[in-house]
Amino acid sequence: MRFDIVTLFPDSFSSVFNSGLIARALSKQIAQVNLVNPREFTNDKHHKVDDEPYGGGVGMVLKPEPIFAAVESLPILSRRDIILMSPQGYTMNQSLLRDLAENYDQLVIVCGHYEGFDERVLNLVTREVSMGDFVLTGGEIPAMALVNGIIRLLPGTVGKVASLQNESFEDGLLDFPQYTRPANFRGWHVPKILLSGNHLKIAQWRHEQQIKKTRARRPDILKAWVEKIQTRGLEEQ
Amino acid sequence: MRFDIVTLFPDSFSSVFNSGLIARALSKQIAQVNLVNPREFTNDKHHKVDDEPYGGGVGMVLKPEPIFAAVESLPILSRRDIILMSPQGYTMNQSLLRDLAENYDQLVIVCGHYEGFDERVLNLVTREVSMGDFVLTGGEIPAMALVNGIIRLLPGTVGKVASLQNESFEDGLLDFPQYTRPANFRGWHVPKILLSGNHLKIAQWRHEQQIKKTRARRPDILKAWVEKIQTRGLEEQ
Repeated sequence: MRFDIVTLFPDSFSSVFNSGLIARALSKQIAQVNLVNPREFTNDKHHKVDDEPYGGGVGMVLKPEPIFAAVESLPILSRRDIILMSPQGYTMNQSLLRDLAENYDQLVIVCGHYEGFDERVLNLVTREVSMGDFVLTGGEIPAMALVNGIIRLLPGTVGKVASLQNESFEDGLLDFPQYTRPANFRGWHVPKILLSGNHLKIAQWRHEQQIKKTRARRPDILKAWVEKIQTRGLEEQ
Repeated sequence: MRFDIVTLFPDSFSSVFNSGLIARALSKQIAQVNLVNPREFTNDKHHKVDDEPYGGGVGMVLKPEPIFAAVESLPILSRRDIILMSPQGYTMNQSLLRDLAENYDQLVIVCGHYEGFDERVLNLVTREVSMGDFVLTGGEIPAMALVNGIIRLLPGTVGKVASLQNESFEDGLLDFPQYTRPANFRGWHVPKILLSGNHLKIAQWRHEQQIKKTRARRPDILKAWVEKIQTRGLEEQ
């Protein structure tokens, strides 16, 4: 998988892909990340990338030309998508990450800027993705999240594929509680069932805990999960 | 505002706070960021921070002691919150960012790890925050997002306070489309109304565009906005 990140702040990415699992995946060539700065595609002597908004208002707006030029300078691989990170977009979730990880060879990620970008940039991109209902100074951190979330799904990044299946959102529920040594930490004990060695009962307990936690914290997710189960039940009849 | 980030990957943060608005805010002492590594609070010779899960399963689980010890090593300011970044938490949104920016002097942010953490860590934290319904390798990028989103709301970070009010989520709607020079870019023209100089009409057009875009993309947000307007209308009667 090739990632091309179009950003005015390429330096902000240098440390985040240099540690942990992602650094290992990049060194194993499972993915590669290329950074492109639209400022290098300006023709004026001040390398101006933004300008005042038409119609008035505070703040500057990113000009369309340098962004188009930056994207058009890139090589084109076969299965390619161009994604704009912006708070107006489709909210990122695990199924989007899985779709992007499985069906593309190249993702061009354009980082928006907090004060806004010229709307005509939408003619360049194939989709607009948001991290959530909040505003950051730019699309850089959302781009880091997108790249991180995709790379960890690529074959070879995470040692055991089972550890990808057994986690939040993959089966539609939040994860179950985990415990490790010591069995007694400051008076808080590990639930006895986990020390029982009865794997069937442990699996049942974990599944119950998933449902309980999801019901308490994310009734929206639980509702979708119940509907999915019911649909599956009907299909099997 | 003081941020203490508890992370096994402190190096991953070095570049992200070194550019743009956030770097300026940190150099102006509007906020300070301190990184703490739980690995430095281990007592065994291998500096072990994780261990096998009780009850079996793939993956390693973060041990509770080093995380408690790391947090307990920190100074305690008066208005303090301890936040765990995890996919199980309350979904981060703009009103949470605003609450944290306005009501706290110190935020301790504990970065979870993708394979899981000992559930007893929940006894240490005052809240659990998620970036969204997706899984990353760790809580580091979510912590960067939280810190970025809060720092930009602190007085002095963004030049004009008006530019904070006039953006996605602050008034409950997505932002209106922005345009800047050139008026004609590759045949795509700036909407005529924005060149009219009629500020009342421009304001009306922008508001209509906000509603239109929000209806098309985020009917959930539009519904909440309509309900808020109706409640306000009833209160004023």
